[in-house]
Amino acid sequence: MISVGIVGGTGYTGVELLRLLLRHPQAQVCVLTSRTEAGKRVADMFPSLRGHTDLEFSDLSLDLLKQCDVVFFATPHGVAMQHAEELIAAGTKVIDLAADFRLQDLAQFEKWYGMQHSCPTVLKDSVYGLSELNREKIKNAKVIGNPGCYPTTVQLGLAPLLKAQNQLINTQSIIVDAKSGVSGAGRKASLGMIYSENADNFKAYGVAGHRHHPEIVEALENISGQQGQFDQLIFVPHLVPMIRGMLSTIYVDLTEQGQQTDLQELYQNFYQNERFVDVMPANSSPETRSVRGANELRIALYRPQPNKLIILVAQDNLVKGAAGQAVQNMNLMFGFDEAAGLNGIGLLP
Amino acid sequence: MISVGIVGGTGYTGVELLRLLLRHPQAQVCVLTSRTEAGKRVADMFPSLRGHTDLEFSDLSLDLLKQCDVVFFATPHGVAMQHAEELIAAGTKVIDLAADFRLQDLAQFEKWYGMQHSCPTVLKDSVYGLSELNREKIKNAKVIGNPGCYPTTVQLGLAPLLKAQNQLINTQSIIVDAKSGVSGAGRKASLGMIYSENADNFKAYGVAGHRHHPEIVEALENISGQQGQFDQLIFVPHLVPMIRGMLSTIYVDLTEQGQQTDLQELYQNFYQNERFVDVMPANSSPETRSVRGANELRIALYRPQPNKLIILVAQDNLVKGAAGQAVQNMNLMFGFDEAAGLNGIGLLP
Amino acid sequence: MISVGIVGGTGYTGVELLRLLLRHPQAQVCVLTSRTEAGKRVADMFPSLRGHTDLEFSDLSLDLLKQCDVVFFATPHGVAMQHAEELIAAGTKVIDLAADFRLQDLAQFEKWYGMQHSCPTVLKDSVYGLSELNREKIKNAKVIGNPGCYPTTVQLGLAPLLKAQNQLINTQSIIVDAKSGVSGAGRKASLGMIYSENADNFKAYGVAGHRHHPEIVEALENISGQQGQFDQLIFVPHLVPMIRGMLSTIYVDLTEQGQQTDLQELYQNFYQNERFVDVMPANSSPETRSVRGANELRIALYRPQPNKLIILVAQDNLVKGAAGQAVQNMNLMFGFDEAAGLNGIGLLP
Amino acid sequence: MISVGIVGGTGYTGVELLRLLLRHPQAQVCVLTSRTEAGKRVADMFPSLRGHTDLEFSDLSLDLLKQCDVVFFATPHGVAMQHAEELIAAGTKVIDLAADFRLQDLAQFEKWYGMQHSCPTVLKDSVYGLSELNREKIKNAKVIGNPGCYPTTVQLGLAPLLKAQNQLINTQSIIVDAKSGVSGAGRKASLGMIYSENADNFKAYGVAGHRHHPEIVEALENISGQQGQFDQLIFVPHLVPMIRGMLSTIYVDLTEQGQQTDLQELYQNFYQNERFVDVMPANSSPETRSVRGANELRIALYRPQPNKLIILVAQDNLVKGAAGQAVQNMNLMFGFDEAAGLNGIGLLP
Repeated sequence: MISVGIVGGTGYTGVELLRLLLRHPQAQVCVLTSRTEAGKRVADMFPSLRGHTDLEFSDLSLDLLKQCDVVFFATPHGVAMQHAEELIAAGTKVIDLAADFRLQDLAQFEKWYGMQHSCPTVLKDSVYGLSELNREKIKNAKVIGNPGCYPTTVQLGLAPLLKAQNQLINTQSIIVDAKSGVSGAGRKASLGMIYSENADNFKAYGVAGHRHHPEIVEALENISGQQGQFDQLIFVPHLVPMIRGMLSTIYVDLTEQGQQTDLQELYQNFYQNERFVDVMPANSSPETRSVRGANELRIALYRPQPNKLIILVAQDNLVKGAAGQAVQNMNLMFGFDEAAGLNGIGLLP
Repeated sequence: MISVGIVGGTGYTGVELLRLLLRHPQAQVCVLTSRTEAGKRVADMFPSLRGHTDLEFSDLSLDLLKQCDVVFFATPHGVAMQHAEELIAAGTKVIDLAADFRLQDLAQFEKWYGMQHSCPTVLKDSVYGLSELNREKIKNAKVIGNPGCYPTTVQLGLAPLLKAQNQLINTQSIIVDAKSGVSGAGRKASLGMIYSENADNFKAYGVAGHRHHPEIVEALENISGQQGQFDQLIFVPHLVPMIRGMLSTIYVDLTEQGQQTDLQELYQNFYQNERFVDVMPANSSPETRSVRGANELRIALYRPQPNKLIILVAQDNLVKGAAGQAVQNMNLMFGFDEAAGLNGIGLLP
Repeated sequence: MISVGIVGGTGYTGVELLRLLLRHPQAQVCVLTSRTEAGKRVADMFPSLRGHTDLEFSDLSLDLLKQCDVVFFATPHGVAMQHAEELIAAGTKVIDLAADFRLQDLAQFEKWYGMQHSCPTVLKDSVYGLSELNREKIKNAKVIGNPGCYPTTVQLGLAPLLKAQNQLINTQSIIVDAKSGVSGAGRKASLGMIYSENADNFKAYGVAGHRHHPEIVEALENISGQQGQFDQLIFVPHLVPMIRGMLSTIYVDLTEQGQQTDLQELYQNFYQNERFVDVMPANSSPETRSVRGANELRIALYRPQPNKLIILVAQDNLVKGAAGQAVQNMNLMFGFDEAAGLNGIGLLP
Repeated sequence: MISVGIVGGTGYTGVELLRLLLRHPQAQVCVLTSRTEAGKRVADMFPSLRGHTDLEFSDLSLDLLKQCDVVFFATPHGVAMQHAEELIAAGTKVIDLAADFRLQDLAQFEKWYGMQHSCPTVLKDSVYGLSELNREKIKNAKVIGNPGCYPTTVQLGLAPLLKAQNQLINTQSIIVDAKSGVSGAGRKASLGMIYSENADNFKAYGVAGHRHHPEIVEALENISGQQGQFDQLIFVPHLVPMIRGMLSTIYVDLTEQGQQTDLQELYQNFYQNERFVDVMPANSSPETRSVRGANELRIALYRPQPNKLIILVAQDNLVKGAAGQAVQNMNLMFGFDEAAGLNGIGLLP
């Protein structure tokens, strides 16, 4: 049994971490901090937790956090990097659910997040926590940058193609048309997020630039080992009037070799041992509700033209796209069964 | 053609007033003010208005407003009462969609709205703008207090009983179980109002006390002419995960005389000449979507026990419960056809 | 480890039973039947189950079902009563999620369900499966009638009052204003249930008569031991545009003794050892999302007038109101921990 | 004042036609037919119409329909073509909202709609009713095939590019990622359409083939005058948990000439005189709610790469994508103001 700290448990990734960790067989949440809610019982803020925990928010105390085996940061961008160095010096592992340890390119981080990185050395040693692709590195990592929700779908959606020995696709014409539920925007008082502005409505947003775009590009470069090959990737996120769920529709041009490859088989083989990635049969349509609350990601392939591939990728943005993946990373880091605490079945309907 | 001013056009009642008034055959919106948005085109804030108006927000200028024939206040509580006196002195009529002119009881106003009333004299001469019940007074009014959304349903739901010659109901055991869409809470950045906190959820709120409660009581006293007879009325509002719409389920104990009355007939007769009140046939269930966007209110009656009456009342909280009723009042005040600008049919589905 | 059969796994209670039972530490689903889908993998119908089970639907075979320790009927009304006798003769316990074993009054059953009861003897020996109130009887039952969703909220909402030594309330003036998500109507092709007819809409339904009304009355009589004392109970269900969730707002008149009782304490004491019933502090408002997917029911009390009590009761209609309660009953029947397989935390947001 | 017949008024396009036509200054609905509902008042089926019409459904009688100046078919595919010839022989114009007169290619019609066309001669003389592009032909048409909802967005989204003198785009690499509210699937009892299957969910559908695909291809060929140039167009529709609204995200590769063109200006000029097409400023994001209930279509352009153009197109699928466009066509056919009866402002929120 390891002891766990959560910094910033008042947002949706925070409460989702609690939902998962309070049922984890080998982890115990010991510290829960909040700048604004110190002294309040978390179950008073999130009544779904009533009867499941007596945890109270405390002020962020590094002394307390250092006594944990691992600390999750479910905070705004820029918080984890202030404390990571001291925590790992004390032997405490760090999993950041914000962006502080996602981008190795410091200039891109500064450009998109509007702040300088405060611990580039720790960043360099940190590991990008996409469990399926970086499993071995994660096992030995001290600091994890947990992937963004959109980038998770794009990477797992494209990895089998990019990891193939041959060049199967044109990397410069990828289009990602992504759709997310509203919880992806977090839990904050914002006019644009209120119910009557979002219900019964659909729109694109961030078309002129979204923070997950550079993360996607850097991650795909790392997967493929090809620098500069994804500069023309198009990424258009949309907002869906639903709480949870994310679907990315990815359009890819196949090379000659790609056209001659059995791509369905390629994907099935690539993910055959992955418990959280489901390659659906041909002509399936992954629905976001099929993974609601579950640490799962479903993929389906279509070939509308001989040289075109459409990849549909569905996940719950708060689970496989955030808190679930973070717990999966923790399991790897501590040598637990990778599925410990993550075997819940999606809530359908 | 009269000239109209709107103070505070950045909320939902403001944009709804614009939707109705921009199509009104005898009114022209000339002034639109906002503390925070002066200089901005209203169509840039509400894209549904693109192509329909070039109006820009201006700072609140009494000089400009005095040139209008009528000024609507779609502002927070407490604004209209600061300017009403000066406006009516200049010959400009005032319709307040907030609570400044709803309660004649100054102590209740102070208790529930947390401020002292600044113009009790104007208040005394103001008229409570429930068109169907106060039509004649409204025609001659200079200042209108536009009713709250919940009180509109309760008054129109109970008026035929209270206006009857005989005592048909026990006025001390009325229960109002009311349900509203989220737009009733307005358009403001508030954590409790964001999409992910309200979608796929249902709850009661304000059970321990809601501002519309004293308004309901005072209004029912005025309708019935019976002071102190509604002190035990129970009012429990609930929040429905929908944008617009309100349904009040009203439970009433019938007296002996009430039990011997043909109540369906009573209601039909009472409202037979009302264009915006629809008494549905027995065994109907008014749906909020049947009045979506329309200045209509539908009523249906049930008799589950000989001495019990259930009254179902549905309206669009932003139309008959707010902006539509305000325009209806304006029509009365200026001698227009009461339905001018209000003949739109509900948007179903 | 017991072996479990499910008859009729194509509806929402069926898939919810699977979600819970596939994670149950002491139960294994061995048989799953469907009239219409025999031969189909259940995960092809409910993709949330992909990766979690290879179960296929089979035709309803009593021989197979008799080999199970317990069989759940997640079927339309009238199916379980055809097979219950043969199953219990073979030593197989039966839990019916439909209405066949809810009403002891045969005339009421025939009136409301339009069919004659085919095994009144079995019915007489069956137990009404409201675990908190009938725990001892359930432990020894062979056939369980799993309560309806609305009746569950009403019984648990009123039981502390009805079980008190003194007469705390007027049993003849109870009003239940209930609201349910759409999944309560099941999974069937019906015009009234389609998305565009229900989204962004609110209405009452079944006001002139609902099947759960006689169940509520009979159950309250059994709880209180007072026959004929609930004949004037008013029950008005409403349909909320959400998938899951149910809130009942119950209005009760207190007797003198009721007014002198500390009702908050009464409720807390009554439920202090119940793991699935949460009496919230004064002035709380139970939200349906706080129990989404969880086998929990939350209660809050209000006293708007000295002689009036309002009881708010929230649950997930598919869990504590159906499949979760059925598993809770199974746990009791087989001597398992009552919470086995039921410790999931609600999905919020 | 012309007399109007509507065949098949029980679906969503039917009730939407009624909402618009009952307020049309120069049209009167005289006949309303339904196979299944003859004798029923339409306001009993659609309570939003209560108080606005006494129309009853009648059996489909050609004698009655021939007395109308124009007949709208809001029926399933295959009905209008059975009656069009006889109606136009009697001097009655026909506007079909189904697909009978959309595709000139008979083989495609047969392939996608599973039936042979019964009146190819009438089809040849019919006009495709996209008002903005075929205005002059529509004015003189006797039979109109009203465009599909998706095709409307694609055509108006691409027309300025395709009508330009120079080749601005690569016509063989167009990708249309389209999203629709659920009402697009019509009003019918279908398991896949029920609330609990669609709410809080997002998915692609029809990826392997959708009936609107051949319509889009044929229509773009006609607009551009280039046969066979759109064979590789990709079209992926998705289902959004909202009632009304459609957004198409169109990805286009620009030619050298396209890259050197001011595309924002091109679009603004192309649509400068169109009352129902709104080219929004750069960096805008058209929201479906901005056109809810309105006969409007909004377009915004993005240039994520020098050689890439993204075109966002929003409309209400039931208005500009169906009934509103049909009325617009009627206005053109009878020489009315094109906006007659269509000046409603979108319902926001």
